[in-house]
Amino acid sequence: MSLIVQKFGGTSVGSIERIEQVAEKVEKFRMDGHSVVVVVSAMSGETNRLIDLAKQIQERPVPRELDVLVSTGEQVTTALLSMALDKRGVKAKSYNGSQVRILTDDAHTKARIREIDDARLHADLDQGYVVVVAGFQGVDENGNITTLGRGGSDTTAVALAAALKADECQIYTDVDGVYTTDPRVVDGARRLDRITFEEMLEMASMGSKVLQIRAVEFAGKYSVPLRVLHSFQEGPGTLITLEDETDMETPTIAGIAFNRDEAKLTVRGVPDMPGVAYRILGPVGEANIEVDVIVQNVGGDGTTDFSFTVGRNDLPRAREVLETTAAEVGAGEVTADSKIAKVSVVGVGMRSHAGVASQMFRALADNGINIQMITTSEIKISVIIEEKYLELAVRALHSSFELDREPRDENAA
Amino acid sequence: MSLIVQKFGGTSVGSIERIEQVAEKVEKFRMDGHSVVVVVSAMSGETNRLIDLAKQIQERPVPRELDVLVSTGEQVTTALLSMALDKRGVKAKSYNGSQVRILTDDAHTKARIREIDDARLHADLDQGYVVVVAGFQGVDENGNITTLGRGGSDTTAVALAAALKADECQIYTDVDGVYTTDPRVVDGARRLDRITFEEMLEMASMGSKVLQIRAVEFAGKYSVPLRVLHSFQEGPGTLITLEDETDMETPTIAGIAFNRDEAKLTVRGVPDMPGVAYRILGPVGEANIEVDVIVQNVGGDGTTDFSFTVGRNDLPRAREVLETTAAEVGAGEVTADSKIAKVSVVGVGMRSHAGVASQMFRALADNGINIQMITTSEIKISVIIEEKYLELAVRALHSSFELDREPRDENAA
Repeated sequence: MSLIVQKFGGTSVGSIERIEQVAEKVEKFRMDGHSVVVVVSAMSGETNRLIDLAKQIQERPVPRELDVLVSTGEQVTTALLSMALDKRGVKAKSYNGSQVRILTDDAHTKARIREIDDARLHADLDQGYVVVVAGFQGVDENGNITTLGRGGSDTTAVALAAALKADECQIYTDVDGVYTTDPRVVDGARRLDRITFEEMLEMASMGSKVLQIRAVEFAGKYSVPLRVLHSFQEGPGTLITLEDETDMETPTIAGIAFNRDEAKLTVRGVPDMPGVAYRILGPVGEANIEVDVIVQNVGGDGTTDFSFTVGRNDLPRAREVLETTAAEVGAGEVTADSKIAKVSVVGVGMRSHAGVASQMFRALADNGINIQMITTSEIKISVIIEEKYLELAVRALHSSFELDREPRDENAA
Repeated sequence: MSLIVQKFGGTSVGSIERIEQVAEKVEKFRMDGHSVVVVVSAMSGETNRLIDLAKQIQERPVPRELDVLVSTGEQVTTALLSMALDKRGVKAKSYNGSQVRILTDDAHTKARIREIDDARLHADLDQGYVVVVAGFQGVDENGNITTLGRGGSDTTAVALAAALKADECQIYTDVDGVYTTDPRVVDGARRLDRITFEEMLEMASMGSKVLQIRAVEFAGKYSVPLRVLHSFQEGPGTLITLEDETDMETPTIAGIAFNRDEAKLTVRGVPDMPGVAYRILGPVGEANIEVDVIVQNVGGDGTTDFSFTVGRNDLPRAREVLETTAAEVGAGEVTADSKIAKVSVVGVGMRSHAGVASQMFRALADNGINIQMITTSEIKISVIIEEKYLELAVRALHSSFELDREPRDENAA
């Protein structure tokens, strides 16, 4: 008997038929004696339908009211799934974010979870209820409804698993695991049996859309074993664990990640003085815009060129903020480029294997792909390139690092 | 400067365009210096869409989850209207039932309001916000979402007006006031400038669908001046007041009300002993089914026939309950008839004018309409007839009491 948190995304609950299938799956776990908490997203299409309604009124809807609006999507699913469970004789109870209560900060449309009160859920689980929780939402300390931003249902699931000390957090999705790269781009992409949190973090943040990055962060921080599985196919999925169980002899590269959802902003002729990076990026952060890659080139004339990438959706707002700042600090022109993409090579222990970077740059050069920005971390190397070269770059790297040939995980599984 | 509660029903907020029109109307009241609380229903069609989803899963959805499901409809409208107000520079804030908080009992799908916490609303009104509240819903003392049943948004509006001590509660709808009877049935039906709470109560409960009966009860109990107006046409509407300002010389009949939404249950051969009415109706009441007309005929053989009417939706459940009870008390057959209708003549001071009943019965007899059940109160006489005679009966009574000819309200208005 263990406690399992299961998360089903929008596609998995996209119709009454699918909700019934989810109920069947949950029923099986109950019959095996497990306690089950289910986290659900809005039925696919519903969130967009609601946002479309809002946009007919306001181009940029009031964030507080946008949260009130879209949070109804998940609430609908919790009620329908609870009914489908009840129909099967499985006692179930729905909860929205405010009922749980999932306390967040007040950053509407991208709130962060502060605290989860698990008292009611534990009481229900002890009485044999399946608890069905609306993903993606919470409530601030003044009782206002908040949402965690798109994909936030994964975060809800992991946060609940951490709060409830669950034995496993299962993320059901429309893929059967985490792949070495997107199989739609590379035919030879392979499913990984396991991957470390750190690697998964880099894969997720780079646009391998299996899991939301914050969910993986949470899972790693609270050591919640996380498993990615297909909603409607059998299979072990991919387990995301703390330990790297590959040894030094196995290849270090887990996969190739990429992201088309970024845009690049550049401000030229920034007076080169201490604190200029903060003066430029501070206001961007205050506007709740996340910055990814940052590159600063000091020129010879006492000025510097400063480039960074943001989510493509944030580009108009980020540009506004940046233009104000540029004027204030006496910098030159601000330019924006949304036709870029980021490609990353990800793998634990990359540092101990020399030459990963040079192998990566050579593979790109061999295919005539120009690199605009480079950033590195302990376990990944990322480059910003022109968007049109994205697929070519991913295929070239996947092949160069022999990810299609060498099943590195067979030892570890 | 007064405090006005305005309620807009599903048709009035049935599209983005209409929500914008409602926002314009609210804006005008704000510009005139009034404080405004707006109560909204779900966009027309939305509640049915949600119930249809539920019914695809369960013929009789779990009541707790049905409430979680349908309460999202009003929440969507509050967010959209708040956006439409914000767009016009009118500060607005949405609240769902649990946020206000509107405390109800735990009778899911037909809960009753116990208490309203007006602290947050007053604070927002003092700061110049228009407060937009989701109608039809509340929360029980354990934090479960409840709904007040169909049409409950009117009740929410009146209850808020009472709690906030509002100067007027305006119910915007798709008719321009309360009529002597349904104009779709009788061409000569006239709008009343004013009507008493008691009369309105009888008109509403009989199916003049302008206002929900509980809203009128609440308004009468707390002396909330209630006005029924058209959402998108100018006009004074009908004011519902405490005082009957007509004098003894004016005709006593306010209107002819009717209701097709009832069904009749009869149990025959009930052993005639004290307490039998309670034994039969007690379990029906415990099942939260409202009973309307009750008739008991004592026969000569020591048994009695017992008939009563319930809402047509409640018929299957009421029949189940009744059949169990009939077996327990040793009664005979239970029969059900859903092809009935109720027609009522309503008017304050009816008792002081002899002959209203006989005039009513004669008008029906003249048209060959058989009366199945009769019930009377201080201000109304109702009969149950075969449904197919409904329109004929209403026209005959409207004409017999000269409601098309005599504008009784011109003196009073």
